[in-house]
Amino acid sequence: MAETIFSEMSRLALEHDAINLGQGFPDTPGPREVVDSAVAAMHKGWNQYPPAVGIASLRHAIADHQRRWYGLDVAADGGVVVCSGASEALSSAMTGLLRPGDEVIALEPYYDLYGATAALLGATLVPVRIHAPDYALDAAALRAAVTERTTMIVLNTPHNPTGAVLSRAELQSIADIAIEHDLVVLSDEVYEHLVFDDNVHVPIATLPGMFERTITVGSGGKTFSVTGWKIGWATGPSSLVEKVLGVKQWFSFAAGTPLQHGIATGLELPDDRLAHLGDDLARKRDLLTDGLRELGLEVFHSKATYFVTADVAPLGVTDSLEFCRSLPERVGVAAVPNQVFHASPEGVETQVRFACCKRDEILADALLRLRKL
Amino acid sequence: MAETIFSEMSRLALEHDAINLGQGFPDTPGPREVVDSAVAAMHKGWNQYPPAVGIASLRHAIADHQRRWYGLDVAADGGVVVCSGASEALSSAMTGLLRPGDEVIALEPYYDLYGATAALLGATLVPVRIHAPDYALDAAALRAAVTERTTMIVLNTPHNPTGAVLSRAELQSIADIAIEHDLVVLSDEVYEHLVFDDNVHVPIATLPGMFERTITVGSGGKTFSVTGWKIGWATGPSSLVEKVLGVKQWFSFAAGTPLQHGIATGLELPDDRLAHLGDDLARKRDLLTDGLRELGLEVFHSKATYFVTADVAPLGVTDSLEFCRSLPERVGVAAVPNQVFHASPEGVETQVRFACCKRDEILADALLRLRKL
Ligand SMILES: CSCCC(=O)C(=O)O
Ligand SMILES: CSCCC(=O)C(=O)O
Repeated sequence: MAETIFSEMSRLALEHDAINLGQGFPDTPGPREVVDSAVAAMHKGWNQYPPAVGIASLRHAIADHQRRWYGLDVAADGGVVVCSGASEALSSAMTGLLRPGDEVIALEPYYDLYGATAALLGATLVPVRIHAPDYALDAAALRAAVTERTTMIVLNTPHNPTGAVLSRAELQSIADIAIEHDLVVLSDEVYEHLVFDDNVHVPIATLPGMFERTITVGSGGKTFSVTGWKIGWATGPSSLVEKVLGVKQWFSFAAGTPLQHGIATGLELPDDRLAHLGDDLARKRDLLTDGLRELGLEVFHSKATYFVTADVAPLGVTDSLEFCRSLPERVGVAAVPNQVFHASPEGVETQVRFACCKRDEILADALLRLRKL
Repeated sequence: MAETIFSEMSRLALEHDAINLGQGFPDTPGPREVVDSAVAAMHKGWNQYPPAVGIASLRHAIADHQRRWYGLDVAADGGVVVCSGASEALSSAMTGLLRPGDEVIALEPYYDLYGATAALLGATLVPVRIHAPDYALDAAALRAAVTERTTMIVLNTPHNPTGAVLSRAELQSIADIAIEHDLVVLSDEVYEHLVFDDNVHVPIATLPGMFERTITVGSGGKTFSVTGWKIGWATGPSSLVEKVLGVKQWFSFAAGTPLQHGIATGLELPDDRLAHLGDDLARKRDLLTDGLRELGLEVFHSKATYFVTADVAPLGVTDSLEFCRSLPERVGVAAVPNQVFHASPEGVETQVRFACCKRDEILADALLRLRKL
């Protein structure tokens, strides 16, 4: 299997000492309580195997968080499994729930892991595209994509790379289809707390009849700006969660014990702290959006996540993959071509995703460098 | 897939407040430099995504370690992939290298992950048993187990659960067979530094013609007494290592950044520090072995690892699985039945593995509790 685009672009960024607006990770620390708690855990000697399912305090913190924020009744025992990052939650869930020949529907653009994991399992990813600039769900297209072999829909809201946030009405259309065809929904909600302005994240598991057929994936790394800790989770009904655990125990077995303690502390922070985690990012989204527009690019409005998508056609670009591969060396900036989130690049050949989760002066410098193009 | 035996026994230990001699993890800290280094990394803000392949300093430390200790020429770039524990190194290697229908030979008893992962992949694990008390390799049986479908041999030396250490002559027999039949060897060497007395660990990759067909798996958690950090690795020729990376990037993507820094510091400790990591454990092996013998049990000599195996038949036990399931509640001790390391329990129905990696007073207390039987 080929190197992921994120690895490739981060490697090129390093090689050419470029500003890395490719792979999504912030360059400022999150809540200090989170790091302090992990450090304290290490000093207390909490460095041995956690339970495969995750330490009790983190599982309880995850369940509490789901209740406080969304009114979801997740069981800390049985309804939560802590994983080595959201990546492992997703790959374990797909491995535990899919069989060769199954079809998985994903809204396109989609995170590369979904397609790669489906391929590894002999399943087929069936893309249903959402289009710039508003990325509205085409419910009819989604319905038309369902076949007798369809067993799962993979959702991602807030959505990477577009920054779209699925509305309650859109989620209801998806829920209707999932219920009608008895499909499992795997809902990747790692950017749940990085939502801007008045946009509201709605977990699909909160819709009537959906909890029992949904695995929801969350991320401590994204929420608390510690992407390198690789603490993620899957929540849902125990009948589905046990299938994730059944696989995940053979993948990495468990995730880093002291880091789990740190993330538990994060989830126990007062709700108003969590509510403002995205504020600074919204401002950065504006900085980057405005700057790219000043360069003459069309920029699609991002409502959430670390990312902003721009169309670089005005720069004379015809292939964003080629463009992104040369960009670190040419001007010292790395970015990700939206093509890689598509089964076919048709229609998005010139779209590029830029990460806005960087210090203001870094964003300003990146924009200056891009000006050279 | 069922809960692993280690999860089950640790859960029972917790439920009944029992001394946990089941799952293998120490209860005393390792070198303090390792924890200090991880803490320093966190305070420096090194909390974002590492490269999927692992941070450069750890990859170099792993390659240097392989050269210093074994004379192996491992490439820090291309020949090493850091994983979310040795578990992920093993599961990724099997996933990257096996196809449905393949046969994998493993010396039996074998770690449960090998069989579960083979099953998940539609491959077949073919066990070749080594027998108590000396656990000598039966090279003829190994040779006879090879068929046209065999593509891999999974080795584990030093060996869990028996504490056996494969000799150079035994490894040569295995190498001969691997070369003759063009097999890949996946060598799980996570206990490489926990070897007692005058026993010597020999990596099979050091034998002539073997490096190019061997993936060697190591563990920072086992070596530095931080089993909960989940930092392991695979090393070998880049042609094989890239297959591990190709899968692992879709499993967890990467392993905990600050913990990688900690393990890098550990591997850079002076060789004489590493050479003595097993000393205290050898003494504990004696404590536990002597204590179990005083209870009238036959104990098989352990040359390495965290473990000692005893035959509990003198206690009137006929099924060690049932025995271990009741032990936490009955006397407040958890242990692991050797059966679970076998495709068939025949001949090992009454063997039990006890972990010796606990403080002296804990081992003494456990022995007192076992005396009640
Ligand atoms: C796991 S690396 C990719 C990080 C990420 O979510 C992104 O950049 O889209
Ligand atoms: C990953 S849990 C099992 C730990 C271990 O290696 C053992 O107890 O055998």
